[in-house]
Amino acid sequence: MAASSSIHPSLRSSARISAAPRLSLAAAPSFSFARRRLHLPSLSSDRFSAPAPVSARTRTAISGSASPVMEDATEKVGSGVSTVVDVDLGSRSYPIYIGSGLLDEPDLLQRHVHGKSILVVTNTTIAPLYLDKVVRALTHRNPKVTVESVILPDGEKYKNMETLMKVFDKAIECRMDRRCTFVALGGGVIGDMCGFAAAAFLRGVNFIQIPTTLMAQVDSSVGGKTGVNHPLGKNLIGAFYQPQCVLIDTDTLNTLPDRELASGIGEAVKYGLIRDKEFFEWQEKNMQALLARDPSALAYAIKRSCENKAEVVSLDEKESGMRATLNLGHTFGHAIETAFGYGQWLHGEAVAAGMVMAVDMSYRLGWIDDTIVKRVYNILQQANLPTTPPETMTVEKFKSVMAVDKKVADGLLRLILLKGPLGNCVFTGDYDRKALDETLHAFCKK
Amino acid sequence: MAASSSIHPSLRSSARISAAPRLSLAAAPSFSFARRRLHLPSLSSDRFSAPAPVSARTRTAISGSASPVMEDATEKVGSGVSTVVDVDLGSRSYPIYIGSGLLDEPDLLQRHVHGKSILVVTNTTIAPLYLDKVVRALTHRNPKVTVESVILPDGEKYKNMETLMKVFDKAIECRMDRRCTFVALGGGVIGDMCGFAAAAFLRGVNFIQIPTTLMAQVDSSVGGKTGVNHPLGKNLIGAFYQPQCVLIDTDTLNTLPDRELASGIGEAVKYGLIRDKEFFEWQEKNMQALLARDPSALAYAIKRSCENKAEVVSLDEKESGMRATLNLGHTFGHAIETAFGYGQWLHGEAVAAGMVMAVDMSYRLGWIDDTIVKRVYNILQQANLPTTPPETMTVEKFKSVMAVDKKVADGLLRLILLKGPLGNCVFTGDYDRKALDETLHAFCKK
Repeated sequence: MAASSSIHPSLRSSARISAAPRLSLAAAPSFSFARRRLHLPSLSSDRFSAPAPVSARTRTAISGSASPVMEDATEKVGSGVSTVVDVDLGSRSYPIYIGSGLLDEPDLLQRHVHGKSILVVTNTTIAPLYLDKVVRALTHRNPKVTVESVILPDGEKYKNMETLMKVFDKAIECRMDRRCTFVALGGGVIGDMCGFAAAAFLRGVNFIQIPTTLMAQVDSSVGGKTGVNHPLGKNLIGAFYQPQCVLIDTDTLNTLPDRELASGIGEAVKYGLIRDKEFFEWQEKNMQALLARDPSALAYAIKRSCENKAEVVSLDEKESGMRATLNLGHTFGHAIETAFGYGQWLHGEAVAAGMVMAVDMSYRLGWIDDTIVKRVYNILQQANLPTTPPETMTVEKFKSVMAVDKKVADGLLRLILLKGPLGNCVFTGDYDRKALDETLHAFCKK
Repeated sequence: MAASSSIHPSLRSSARISAAPRLSLAAAPSFSFARRRLHLPSLSSDRFSAPAPVSARTRTAISGSASPVMEDATEKVGSGVSTVVDVDLGSRSYPIYIGSGLLDEPDLLQRHVHGKSILVVTNTTIAPLYLDKVVRALTHRNPKVTVESVILPDGEKYKNMETLMKVFDKAIECRMDRRCTFVALGGGVIGDMCGFAAAAFLRGVNFIQIPTTLMAQVDSSVGGKTGVNHPLGKNLIGAFYQPQCVLIDTDTLNTLPDRELASGIGEAVKYGLIRDKEFFEWQEKNMQALLARDPSALAYAIKRSCENKAEVVSLDEKESGMRATLNLGHTFGHAIETAFGYGQWLHGEAVAAGMVMAVDMSYRLGWIDDTIVKRVYNILQQANLPTTPPETMTVEKFKSVMAVDKKVADGLLRLILLKGPLGNCVFTGDYDRKALDETLHAFCKK
């Protein structure tokens, strides 16, 4: 077992210093981040003028800093490798732990477990890789807990009510009670299903997210959106239900297929486009490092994505407005996923093509200039993500699925579109329908 | 259409005076209740020392009072026939309207409808009786709304995920969006399923409860417990999700079968036992009036039940303690429903037998004296409710289903038991297991 030095309860507000650099980060320029409470009413761009992580300045600062890290809103540099991002939701607040080797730190998980029985929900791909490790972390010096697991088939096409029932069946067979804890171990599909199962089982039990894909780490595990698909539309059945914590062990990315990695990068690009120009520019410069799985680059992208998401969710948990902006490209993307068949494309792939379409439409409306269109296209191409929908998608298919999108209100489809300089977007139903038609026709053969 | 004079928005805090007494109440002694905000930290028994409704004093007071009714915690007498009970849950607060002919008052429903599309969820028994009436109330002088309906099979045995999916299917087919409203028109099963569907559809849409059985009117429509059964246990999958309002038109009881009426009375008896001695005593005196469907007796029982429930729910929405007391007799009762087969006995029938068992156990523990045991037995017998479980129930069946009860915590079964004078109960896992065993053996042949 690796040394468990990166995060400890007692270090919450102080420096996180690794006695020995973790294996996966040893060769890379390392950096650390202070815990930041993200509950400011608005976000000035200055707040994110952090040094790019692979800069000389960062490395210098690390070697020069062994003093406690202050808890403020500016970027501080220590010498640990981990970070904590808070999702500030009053009594439903929770921390996101990000770091290497976190699954080797039993304390971190155990302090968020309620009751004596735990149900780990995972899938056939992840179970052989990480289930034992997670069970060990949950039971280490903790003989009173009982850990059960349910292993679901892997893939978006199984994200439905039928599969969900297997979680309930298992929980009831094992006589789980209201004081049990569900643990989601896997990607976005597992997180969404386990979260919804936790929301509905006995009308709500505690749960913990352990996302193992970049997609889940930068997006779906944070913010409490849970649910399953309906044959006619994605995520149409679910709940807003917050976890006790999100534990992101960046080491799990070592086993992630390239295509899944790129899919996660698609969502990270999204944050840059809708609200964080500096992050977008950082990604433009560091895309090769991300694709090469540079641990520090990945850790930075995850942290900054979680910060963006945590801030938005803190301000608008139930998606009454601002939170919808996180769905840039998703209305088009969900239509692709639904009409093309769940699981044919990964979520981030569909979202990438969807973002290009949303950007195209924004340009047709005259809301952005063409340099943004080009930069979006280029960065997604660099990330090996699709920039057009599958050839079988027709205008009719798009329209039919988009009509049941959750963002339709009283019959009006609202979209997230870019408007103004890079990093700005709007969520609106007030746009020229002609532009939408033109975009659909431009991206579909018929 | 009947005159819509019993409740009007402008009358919320003032007198409710019927210009013409309603048909169904014309021949009965009528009385009215001021709107009461039920958010006091505790309830003294004095608060419920209201005049019994069939007393001369009430009638006298009515004829002498045409002045505005004050909004305070004491019983006031006007001359209307309706009442409003508030469930005080901060931003999730909502009113319960109780009265005759309320379905003939379109304003009352329409002000709680959000958006332009409505889905009425009802069943094959209720649809022919009240669906047209409800659609009329929703659309009267309101041409912009579209009302769709889904008619489910009737009965507890259909309260499952499969039936629930029919609601989602219909909502998605009709392209309902987040601004739609679901309306539950029926008894407890419809209310629980429609409420859970509303909680989960698009992660939450508005809903309205129109309970048509006494059971639903005195209990299940109030307080936001929603859900479906699992083959291994009742209500194991669901959500706490509050409606926009509960509209109780007492006229709907005119079409209720006797057995269903008695089932509802079972839950009303419960309130008396756990927290409202005066209400219990009133029921002892007025049971024949209730069974004879005396409109004012029923209206009073409904109002007082809703007040009790609203107060408990306001203090403990998510059942962290006090709310569990509303489940007196339910742990035994759920075991009967589950093991005997959903729908074989009505919920209130199972709860009645369950209450006798809980009272028996309380007596064996030495927590109550035998007069209470006798009074409970007598009142339930008077109400034509069962006082023993079905003959096929065995000790083993009870134990097996009770082991997955939602009130089990870390393996310990907590029960609601009576303790002390009439009107007092405890929710506890701290009892002699022997008493539970003895009770089970006393009520089962093997």
